[in-house]
Amino acid sequence: DEEPEMLSDDDPFAHEPDRHPALKVNSWQPFNAETPSELLADKFVTPSDLLYVRNHLPVPVIDENDYRLEISGDGMYSVRLSMKDLKKMKKHNVVVTLQCAGNRRNDMKKVREVKGLDWEQGAIGTAKWTGVRLIDVLQQIGFDLSNHAEIRHLHFEGLDKDFSHNYGGSIPIEKAMDRHGDVLLAYEMNDEPIPRDHGFPLRLIVPGYVGARNCKWLAKLHFSFDESDNHHQQKDYKTFSSSTAWEDVDWTKGRAIQELPVTSVICSPPEGTTYSKGTKEIQVRGYAYSGGGRGINRVDVSIDEGKTWHSAKLKRDPEAAYNREWAWTLWSCPLPIPEGSTGPLTIMVKAVDTSYNTQPDSIEHIWNIRGLLANSWHKVGVKIE
Amino acid sequence: DEEPEMLSDDDPFAHEPDRHPALKVNSWQPFNAETPSELLADKFVTPSDLLYVRNHLPVPVIDENDYRLEISGDGMYSVRLSMKDLKKMKKHNVVVTLQCAGNRRNDMKKVREVKGLDWEQGAIGTAKWTGVRLIDVLQQIGFDLSNHAEIRHLHFEGLDKDFSHNYGGSIPIEKAMDRHGDVLLAYEMNDEPIPRDHGFPLRLIVPGYVGARNCKWLAKLHFSFDESDNHHQQKDYKTFSSSTAWEDVDWTKGRAIQELPVTSVICSPPEGTTYSKGTKEIQVRGYAYSGGGRGINRVDVSIDEGKTWHSAKLKRDPEAAYNREWAWTLWSCPLPIPEGSTGPLTIMVKAVDTSYNTQPDSIEHIWNIRGLLANSWHKVGVKIE
Ligand SMILES: [Mo]
Ligand SMILES: [Mo]
Repeated sequence: DEEPEMLSDDDPFAHEPDRHPALKVNSWQPFNAETPSELLADKFVTPSDLLYVRNHLPVPVIDENDYRLEISGDGMYSVRLSMKDLKKMKKHNVVVTLQCAGNRRNDMKKVREVKGLDWEQGAIGTAKWTGVRLIDVLQQIGFDLSNHAEIRHLHFEGLDKDFSHNYGGSIPIEKAMDRHGDVLLAYEMNDEPIPRDHGFPLRLIVPGYVGARNCKWLAKLHFSFDESDNHHQQKDYKTFSSSTAWEDVDWTKGRAIQELPVTSVICSPPEGTTYSKGTKEIQVRGYAYSGGGRGINRVDVSIDEGKTWHSAKLKRDPEAAYNREWAWTLWSCPLPIPEGSTGPLTIMVKAVDTSYNTQPDSIEHIWNIRGLLANSWHKVGVKIE
Repeated sequence: DEEPEMLSDDDPFAHEPDRHPALKVNSWQPFNAETPSELLADKFVTPSDLLYVRNHLPVPVIDENDYRLEISGDGMYSVRLSMKDLKKMKKHNVVVTLQCAGNRRNDMKKVREVKGLDWEQGAIGTAKWTGVRLIDVLQQIGFDLSNHAEIRHLHFEGLDKDFSHNYGGSIPIEKAMDRHGDVLLAYEMNDEPIPRDHGFPLRLIVPGYVGARNCKWLAKLHFSFDESDNHHQQKDYKTFSSSTAWEDVDWTKGRAIQELPVTSVICSPPEGTTYSKGTKEIQVRGYAYSGGGRGINRVDVSIDEGKTWHSAKLKRDPEAAYNREWAWTLWSCPLPIPEGSTGPLTIMVKAVDTSYNTQPDSIEHIWNIRGLLANSWHKVGVKIE
């Protein structure tokens, strides 16, 4: 893709926001871009204009004064709330890491072709989100689900749309109503109004869940007996075995991705870095993350094909309660270079989360047609010359 | 170990219960034995007398009429409850899979020696537990933690002891107090009083957590500011990198195992089974499990070194709510034998849970000094002759 020329005003992409020039663009229409890897592990909270952007459709133009959020439910009434209504309710902050299910898809493409944007490892980042808790809003408007046991899912819909449909999906009711789930209707990102690319004026924040469920430009919430039938819930964001081809896939057989699995990535040094002979140590840095509120227990780094693993120093949120650790862990590790090393070497990383889940060794056995959840050991090649 | 001869009455092991002769014994004193693999995947609920037994100490002799449970807390009062008191409260059932952290340690021993009992894959099983919910008990006795935010852990202690200490440990307060965590004080197992080997008269059931926290012969619960300093919490039930030796280990650096990672095992055919040339298909069966209430999304089976993966048919609890699936998933898969196959073949299995975590490919990179959490792909060798 190349940056598009001037557009006529009735083009749906005529009103896209300005973007930071350092973002690595994967597609212009819709806009999809990631944070350069070397900038990622610098800061625990990613600057707003450097956070990856994953848009499925044009960015809608929204006037905050006209905006209304509709909340409804199967067998229930419906309520419309203005931004003013929401901002009167109790404010709440959560620092949350969001990750696209396609992060590191480029590694999966090396095995065999997949359908999807060509993300490297920068489709992830962390922001402080401020807004109102969903459970507080429901209490305020008298939306009592306790007599509606058949309600199993919370549908969401964004204001972004093409000719036929709006972006949407659903999350399980257990997450939506969990007192410790921290689901938020957010109107600030890093202490400012949410930028247009990230969901102005209101975004659904579902901590520990895949980016796709953190619906931008939130228009509707609907409590339902059934899972959303939106394309992005039913025929996308699922994985199948590496032997399942597009021709064979039965989308009803896979469950929608919600909580993300454990992962870790080397952000520095970059691929292909050359060190002089006799270098004693390389400083390696990166991020690790696990979904569902699970924290990172350990990050192991190797430069000798896994014969020796060095446990990295971890920087995490020290305040996080058990299974409520919504942000990533940054890590660093001084990696000793075996004496007399010369030629190409591979740095590898793998993490263990607080549930003691760990990453698969190889990418070929988690390969899937959509190239999702590429969380095998991350590798970076360097040279000693 | 051999079965011990008649013991004098003051021997601490003189009062052990009778055991089912089919159990595969790993140690007699304390008694540790597992379910034969072929019997495991037969039934969703394991018969009580065939469930694995993991005892750290002699089985205590307890008179139900004299028995009292003590509940106390830092900065709180203490309460003593009889079995009669507990049985008056509201009854609750949960079907829970328990697994020893050492299950499949024998596979880890093949890499390098480890310290611990030599479990094969039968240190796991499922039972229906009946009793009272911990949160209901606390409400009944007026134990209100809402004004005790500094309390972070629930300690437990069993009546099993040696000269210096009782068995014990702790779980995070978040799990203990979770309305959907289903923590139980159980007095029945599979609709009968809990057998002595499994914790008569009262066992703490912590669904989704490692067996070690499901304290048998429960004597004390104590709400505390700090994690338990019991040996089994601090210097056991933790893993370190495969480069960490006994001499190097700093136990304070690892977190205690609580929720278990995803795993899957082939129960049938048994290792070394021989099939005649021309066999078209092998029926493969086994179990899969993930901790923290996560269910199993998919089980993949291969007989060609991972070139082809076949997704198995799953038998799970259809009623389980999201992240509240405490029981395992049984699976079966008709595995086609490549035409003209002859000689040794390896059947391999790997599972994906509902958080999309998956198993590591190889065992050597998760090897650890205590041989815990051996959840790499399970393999069974068969022959075509
Ligand atoms: Mo995504
Ligand atoms: Mo155990």
